[in-house]
This record gives sequence, structure tokens and C-alpha cells, in this order.
Amino acid sequence: MSAAPPPERLDRLIEVYRHGLLDDSIPFWMEHGLDRRFGGIMTSLDRDGTILDTDKGVWQQGRFAWIIGHLYNTVEPRAEWLDAAESTLRFIQAHAFDTDGRMFFQVTREGRPVRKRRYAFSEAFAAMAFGEHARATGSAASKAMAAKLYRAFAGHVPSPPKFTDVRPMKSMAAPMIRIVVAQRLRDAIGLDGADAEIDRAIDEIRQDFMKPGIGCCMENVGPAGELIDSFDGRLLNPGHAIEGAWFMMREGELRNNAAYVRAGCDVLDWMWDRGWDREYGGMLYFRDVDGKPVAEYWHDMKFWWPQNETIIATLLAYRLTGDGTYAAMHAQVHDYAYGLFPDPDHGEWFGYFHRDGRLSTPLKGNLYKGCFHVPRQALECWRIAGEIKRGRTGWLAS
Amino acid sequence: MSAAPPPERLDRLIEVYRHGLLDDSIPFWMEHGLDRRFGGIMTSLDRDGTILDTDKGVWQQGRFAWIIGHLYNTVEPRAEWLDAAESTLRFIQAHAFDTDGRMFFQVTREGRPVRKRRYAFSEAFAAMAFGEHARATGSAASKAMAAKLYRAFAGHVPSPPKFTDVRPMKSMAAPMIRIVVAQRLRDAIGLDGADAEIDRAIDEIRQDFMKPGIGCCMENVGPAGELIDSFDGRLLNPGHAIEGAWFMMREGELRNNAAYVRAGCDVLDWMWDRGWDREYGGMLYFRDVDGKPVAEYWHDMKFWWPQNETIIATLLAYRLTGDGTYAAMHAQVHDYAYGLFPDPDHGEWFGYFHRDGRLSTPLKGNLYKGCFHVPRQALECWRIAGEIKRGRTGWLAS
Repeated sequence: MSAAPPPERLDRLIEVYRHGLLDDSIPFWMEHGLDRRFGGIMTSLDRDGTILDTDKGVWQQGRFAWIIGHLYNTVEPRAEWLDAAESTLRFIQAHAFDTDGRMFFQVTREGRPVRKRRYAFSEAFAAMAFGEHARATGSAASKAMAAKLYRAFAGHVPSPPKFTDVRPMKSMAAPMIRIVVAQRLRDAIGLDGADAEIDRAIDEIRQDFMKPGIGCCMENVGPAGELIDSFDGRLLNPGHAIEGAWFMMREGELRNNAAYVRAGCDVLDWMWDRGWDREYGGMLYFRDVDGKPVAEYWHDMKFWWPQNETIIATLLAYRLTGDGTYAAMHAQVHDYAYGLFPDPDHGEWFGYFHRDGRLSTPLKGNLYKGCFHVPRQALECWRIAGEIKRGRTGWLAS
Repeated sequence: MSAAPPPERLDRLIEVYRHGLLDDSIPFWMEHGLDRRFGGIMTSLDRDGTILDTDKGVWQQGRFAWIIGHLYNTVEPRAEWLDAAESTLRFIQAHAFDTDGRMFFQVTREGRPVRKRRYAFSEAFAAMAFGEHARATGSAASKAMAAKLYRAFAGHVPSPPKFTDVRPMKSMAAPMIRIVVAQRLRDAIGLDGADAEIDRAIDEIRQDFMKPGIGCCMENVGPAGELIDSFDGRLLNPGHAIEGAWFMMREGELRNNAAYVRAGCDVLDWMWDRGWDREYGGMLYFRDVDGKPVAEYWHDMKFWWPQNETIIATLLAYRLTGDGTYAAMHAQVHDYAYGLFPDPDHGEWFGYFHRDGRLSTPLKGNLYKGCFHVPRQALECWRIAGEIKRGRTGWLAS
């Protein structure tokens, strides 16, 4: 494969991404998921959009309100998008908070609490959503809420502990999500101290999770980055690491920090090598760092979101480095995923395939798959492909 | 297929079960899992018995100490079995209890606590284990411990709640495990009031979980047996219901209660119909009561234990009713499972296959798969097949 995508492929990619975002994914969720009665969004939808379960995941409320507000702010100020964002934010404010100020994980359609978790990712996604709303409307209340929720997330210490402190372990999720939430809030509300917080999070990933000696980005390590020889310690989540990789590349581009871009590319290289399925194509879900069996028995399934994150990371890596290897990787994962996941009959992507490409379940959403990875990938790649077309390739080489 | 298994098949079954128990499964765990340094058993073993993770599941300590003690008491008083049971019970006593008296879920190899859960199934399995030890040795302390742990389990109210009380739901697991623990402790230590407790548990299953109108035994219902139209409410776990079915059949036989036997057969009929994979054979893991998609994405995998429980239930149903339909069902599931799950090279069963019979992971154990369902099935079926051979068939017909 030649170093650069041919111009006609680039044009086709731009159209696939734009169409997938604006004519397919977003309309699917707006039509079938948006709750015009109680506000917010229901994401447990069957293949054709029929509701399978009316409970509302709080992560998914924040993620939806974020992307729909972000589209309003950065693509086109459509009133229906702002309305949907505001409906969801009103639902969040009215129903997603416990009396202690912490957010729930799951509530009923009407907004009664069902489940609360120890982690503060509900807060992280809601922070991003309020940030976009502040940007869209100038609302001081939304701006203050975004900053407050960011602090609640970034400063959160899970409590009471489910695991005792016998074997302390930290997860890549925490610094990775700190990067993206701070990035989005820096754009949306000019979050104070965002650069420094992102630097700290990237430093933590580079120092504690990235292991150049073995060519790997770990998912779980000890407090000082120690490798832990257990199921959890050896567990790799290549799609997750690659998601973090493109957050670092983005930061490197913006801050003119080549080390950040290279760190992102290193993680992408390592985790592609560990996660790409050479037999059937696509990114596998879990791997063991030593090639041992993984305890989670869905380890070899093909989930939607690791493909989404790898499509973004490879395309961005190509744009930033001009290295044709990344263009080839992008073509591989794009062609694999777009040949398998989109549902031509009802729109949106399926979520869960077996390793060999057989569909495991036809549903379009649940409390974990909502309106987020698929449209975010389409949006990011639409932009990146457009930049490549306009000749903005090879930032690192320049 | 003729009503009864031909005598030569019966002889072969008896040999397969006896051999699988005494020459294969138990030796695998005794050789590779037993921890001669710190006591107890490690169950996270690779295909060849290599240790993958040294953490000890507390469920698995109790289950192992139960079966190995039960074999000592009911098969043959081998000193090595009693030693293994005592090593594990000492480990449990020294390391499995929190300061509040509740048991942990997971501890390190040395016995330091890693995780505690809201449920009291650690207590249930430990109760059975101490009961067998009391029976083996006459130990009054073990007898008292067994009774105390049974009370702790049977009277346990999970707290603090992970789910709020907005949508109360109860699970089939609670009454089902109350039946078997009370049965085992009635045998082992003459547990006070066991009959009445078992009656209450069976009544609860019959009244709240069994739905003759739709031919189904539910996994989760409202407090008064209400069907709940949500992912969790519609979820069926056929292997789990069938495990409860043979507990009820056993009780019916012992107590001369035909209604209990018939309830067990009803559950078996219904859940075979819903769980048996007509395309690839074997019991599927999860089904939706309305045939809708299941939220758990490993729903169509073939796990070891639903096959074990169905092999027992069909053979027992045949012995108790003399109905050749059950003999045919038993032949189907036995031949399917024994053709797929046992590892001829290293012993014991694999645990996790894809729907179509491809192996998902070669490991032999983790915190969930230990020394329990495989040897218990072999033991139960060895006995049942022997009874059939001796002409004890058709109890209900008599």
C-alpha cells in the first residue's frame, strides 16, 4: 500500500464519516432513544430501535448530552440538538444526584435511583456535557456545574473500598479520562489549570502504565507502576489503551509537544500488535501480557468501541506523522469494522460480534453502548480526513 | 430411542462417571490446586495445571472442602481427602472471616483479604464443608460452625444495598441454595428444622419463580413473584433453574412428595426447551423469556456447569419417573458434553466454549470454576446410574 490514501479513497472516507454521523447514528438515537416524556435518553434499544429496557444509564445521559451539544457547537447550531442536550441536562440535574452530591449510575425512566457505583465516571461525562452547554448558551450555571463536576471526578477517591488495601492497584481509566475531560472543558469553558492537569495525567501514563521494555501499555498496575503477576495485573485492554493514545496525540499536536505524539504512537504500535486479530481481523477485547489465558470469558469478542478508537488513532497517527504504515493500519481496521458493524437496515452499529464475525446479539444499545463511541469516531475521522485532504499531514515530520 | 438405556450403555456410563470423578477431576485439583504451603486450594489453573493466579476464592475453598469431605464420608475414607479438607478448613478459619464475622469473597494465597461481597454464598459453601467435617470426625466444633454459618447465610440480608429499593427484585439463587445447603447439613449434622426450611424454599420457588402459564422458571422476580419487564426481569438462566430442579426432585424422593418431583420435572422440561441449543447442542447460558436480546454478551456461550447440572437432572428425572423422554434427553446432553468438555491430555473439564463448540479459553479454573460442578455431577450420576442398573427406576410410577 502506498504511503498516502489515494484522493478518491479520502473523499469516500469523508463521505462515509459525515454520513455515518449526521444521517445514521445521531438520527437513530434521536428518533428511538430520546425520551420526549421524561427527558434524557434511553439507550437499551433493539436492532430496529424498539426499547428493550427503559432504565437510564447516567454515563449515557452525560455522553449523549455532550456529543449532541458538541455537534451544536462545532458542526451546526441545530435547535433540535440543543433541545435534546437541554432535555438531558435537566433530567441529570433533577434525577442523577444522590443526597450526598455523588451521582448515580442507573435510574428508572422517570428518574428514580436504581444503582450507584463507587467510581465517579458519571461525574466525568456530565462535566463534559455541562461544558458544551455553557459554550452553546453562555450559561454561567452550566459553566460552574461543569467545573464543579470535573473537580468531583478528578478528586474522587472511591469509597467504601470493595477491594481492601492488601493489593493496591490503579487503572489506566483514571488518567486517560482525566485527559479527555480536561481537554474538552478547556475548549468549552476554558477550564483553569487544564494544561497542568493533562500534563500530570500523561506523565502518569508514560511513567506508570507504558512499559517500553516489553512494548506494552498496561491496564492495571501497582501505585508506582509495578507489574502485578495476576489475572488483573496481566490483563490488557488494547482498545482502551489506544483510546488513550489518541488523546495523547491530540495533546501533543495542540501543545506542540512531539514527545506526547510519539508516546501516543508507541502505545498504538504496541497495542495494535497485541490486540489486532491476525486471523479474523479487528481488535480483540482483552489480552494477557504474557499470552496466558484471560479470566474474562468474552476476551476474544469483537466489541464496537475498540474498533472505533483504533480507527481514530490510526488515522490521526497518519496525519501527524505522515507514516504510511498508519494509513495502512487505518485502512485495515476501517474496512474491517465498516464491513461488519453498521446495520444497513436500521442504522447505527451493532455492538457485539464473536471473534469470527458472527453477530452475538442484534441489540443497538444497553447501559454500556449508547450514543458515544460510534458518532464520536465518525466526527473525529470526518475532521481528520478533511485535514489530510487539505494537505495537513506529517506534523511531526515538519 | 427406547425408554431405557441399554445395559451396556449403563455400564459404560457408570464407568465414565466413576473414572471422571476418582481418576480425573479430583486428582487434577489435588495435584495442581492444593496449596501445601499455606493450606486451602488455588483454582486459577491453566490447562496443564500451571497456576495462573494465586488468589483464593472463598466460595471455592468451601466447595472443595465440602466435596472432598463428602467423598471421604460417602465413597471411601481416604486419609489424603480428609487431610485436604482439614487443610482447607483451617485456611478458612484463619483467613476467610472479616472482623464483623462476615466472610470474604477473595483472599491472597497467604490469606490476606482482597475482596468482600454483599452476598453470603461464601458462608453457604463453608457451612456445607464444616458439616462434612463434623460427619467425618465427630467434631462438635465443626458441627457448631456448620450450623452457625447456615444461619448466617439463611438469615443474611445483603447490606449496604448496591441497588436502592426502587425496584426490589429477588433471585432464584437464594431459595435454591437454601435447599441444597439444608439438605447437605441434614445429612451431615442433622440440622434442626431442615425439612421445614426446605419446604419454605421449595414453596417460594413454586409460588414466585415457576410460571406454568408461560412454561418458565424465572431467574429474577419481584418480591411477590411479579414478572418485571426489563433486561434483568426477562433474563433466564436455564442451567441454574435446572440445578434447582434436581434439588427439588431429590427432596421429593426423600420425603415421598410427588409434587416436589413433578415441580422439578416441570422446571427441567421448561428450561430444556428454552435453553437447549437445537443447532449446536448443549445448554446455552442466558435466554430472554420473550426471545428478546439479552444484555449479557456471553449469553450464547457454553459454560461447563449448565451441562453438568442438566446431565444430573435428566438422569435423575429418568430414574424417578421411568419416562424414556428423560433418558433420551440425558443421552443428548451427556454425549454433547462428554464429547466436548473433558481434556484428554491433562484431565478435568475445560470451562468455556463458544456456542459452536470452539474453545474460548483453555484454562481449567478461576475464581468461579473450581473443584465443584464437574466432580459433583460425576458423583451424583455414578450413583444414579447404579441405582437404575439395580432396577430402582420409576419411583413416581410405582
